[in-house]
Amino acid sequence: MPHPDRRAALRALLDAAGLDALLVTDLLDVRYLTGFTGSNAAAVVDVHGRDLLCTDGRYRIQAGEQCPDLETVIDRPSAPAAAATVPAGRTLGYDSATLTVDGFAAVRDAVPGRRLRRAPGLVARLRTVKDDGEVAALRAACELADAALRELLEAGGLAPGRTERQVADDLEDRMRRLGAAGPAFETILAAGAHSAVPHHRPTGTELRRGDLVKIDFGAALDGYHSDTTRTFCIGPAADWQRELHALVDAAAAAGRAALTDGAAVTDVDGAARDVIERAGYAEQFPHGLGHGVGLAVHEPPWLSRTGTGTVAAGSVVTVEPGVYLEGRGGVRIEDTLHVRSGAPAAALTSLPRELVEV
Amino acid sequence: MPHPDRRAALRALLDAAGLDALLVTDLLDVRYLTGFTGSNAAAVVDVHGRDLLCTDGRYRIQAGEQCPDLETVIDRPSAPAAAATVPAGRTLGYDSATLTVDGFAAVRDAVPGRRLRRAPGLVARLRTVKDDGEVAALRAACELADAALRELLEAGGLAPGRTERQVADDLEDRMRRLGAAGPAFETILAAGAHSAVPHHRPTGTELRRGDLVKIDFGAALDGYHSDTTRTFCIGPAADWQRELHALVDAAAAAGRAALTDGAAVTDVDGAARDVIERAGYAEQFPHGLGHGVGLAVHEPPWLSRTGTGTVAAGSVVTVEPGVYLEGRGGVRIEDTLHVRSGAPAAALTSLPRELVEV
Repeated sequence: MPHPDRRAALRALLDAAGLDALLVTDLLDVRYLTGFTGSNAAAVVDVHGRDLLCTDGRYRIQAGEQCPDLETVIDRPSAPAAAATVPAGRTLGYDSATLTVDGFAAVRDAVPGRRLRRAPGLVARLRTVKDDGEVAALRAACELADAALRELLEAGGLAPGRTERQVADDLEDRMRRLGAAGPAFETILAAGAHSAVPHHRPTGTELRRGDLVKIDFGAALDGYHSDTTRTFCIGPAADWQRELHALVDAAAAAGRAALTDGAAVTDVDGAARDVIERAGYAEQFPHGLGHGVGLAVHEPPWLSRTGTGTVAAGSVVTVEPGVYLEGRGGVRIEDTLHVRSGAPAAALTSLPRELVEV
Repeated sequence: MPHPDRRAALRALLDAAGLDALLVTDLLDVRYLTGFTGSNAAAVVDVHGRDLLCTDGRYRIQAGEQCPDLETVIDRPSAPAAAATVPAGRTLGYDSATLTVDGFAAVRDAVPGRRLRRAPGLVARLRTVKDDGEVAALRAACELADAALRELLEAGGLAPGRTERQVADDLEDRMRRLGAAGPAFETILAAGAHSAVPHHRPTGTELRRGDLVKIDFGAALDGYHSDTTRTFCIGPAADWQRELHALVDAAAAAGRAALTDGAAVTDVDGAARDVIERAGYAEQFPHGLGHGVGLAVHEPPWLSRTGTGTVAAGSVVTVEPGVYLEGRGGVRIEDTLHVRSGAPAAALTSLPRELVEV
């Protein structure tokens, strides 16, 4: 969807909320609405039609190239400077979920005579529903990352004796060679007892026969991201490893099946969590079921026990249950899926989910 | 400096500010004070001695390993949960420079009976003065990055016909092979007219004879960062390129010479800016002279026309003047330096600064 269309969609939300304009300060929100990718910017989207981008002198040329349709103001700090362009007497919303307390104070001091109103998450809400171009970008990132893991497996990348760090570097190198800008986040590569640490950072520990190896990884491509987890066994799996993997696989399947247009986020989480709780592992699944993926690796909607709201067609979200047995090992299985209307969610990730013994 | 000593230094600042405790919500501040590296956490540092870390279930094991000396609370959202551990009747500071408006509201609702007080940048202030271990980490990152660029040059990495993207990838690969966790930021690799874009992102444009090539890059290593810029010429330099490079080199030298313990940040910026302004290029130097480098690539102190305060011995900062001629080319020369007491600032980066024709 062209950026002006996204701003038009936002304008409708602003109008409904009784706002004359929104001050956009989150950089990914700015990118979503304008295409600008610099590291310092704020934008104003105005119901009355005078949108603009504010950045500093380092980005003057880039702003002109990326946003030829937008008025650009070169000034800093960018948020107060952008806010000050809104005429007196207007009601200006700001994103209280991302603007800092001091950032708000600076904006407030810059706009005497305007009404400032809390308006958290309006752009984040638009961003939860991906347009066709975004789904294509997310699919491309998922396909690239999955291809890199397939390559790694085919090259014997999970051989005993390699270290977690070596395997993680190898996987990240393969993603870059396949065209990724880089990893979407620090790769989690966790062998043996480390696989029981949900967010383990790779170390010099060597992979050994009998280890579970959990790999949570993603690719960044054209500003979008993928997020996949698979758990392997080095050599033949023991019964407990096979059972743990089957349990998590069943929970993931239940979560995916519940991921439908209009489902409450707590119900999607609950569908997978019930499977794990009934097996007696409630305490060993200490995180939410999943999250949205887009310009940010982690963004709304949040699938969790404490989340609010529903999932909408067009969202792209992860389903990633895990069970972690401290000191022994853990299993997580994660896919990134596109929620559709009148159809099951479609996985953008395509790696097989059965337990692979390498 | 061990983490408990850093918390003791913070306690002295809190005591002087009349605070009973500080709620620490910025993740790099949390890391600095506790050693914890997870992606969700808040900490409380308490004048009365009861410090604690709050994170979520994904990080229970990691928190125990990284912070064996600290009480850990597993709960989320972490900031309100951490704040709620402070006893009633106490005065709790919060970092208004990083806590969001909504984050503050959640904390406020969680701590009835405590006084909340704005306390921006207290940990950031401590972080501006690096201890010996930090300086060693920053020096190691700088040496690694510089070694990677030397390797690239010796391998003929700036040959005409290679693209900006290829050269940037090559340089980042070399940093990783030398042990970096990754690039400290997206490498700026800008050839020809692109070198006039201060923060250009590498493209498929090929390097050609006669191009200025600006390379702004850094390594991330053990949580710390380097930041270096050099500008090369592909083949023999034209007179205007040689003059532009000499001008920026002189400005950088003036900036480094002014970088002394106690100097006003505006004076350090001004020392370099004067050189450029006297040559008639005031408008072509559209950014500040430099910034602190540490756990963040960009952190206080800020050397700029609009900055406040002075530079202190122990700070590690960049000096990076640039002159950018739109449509023709630009030059930036950047080093990362350690400010010392009673001695000139010592460069941690070591690449030669004269114009190299490759």
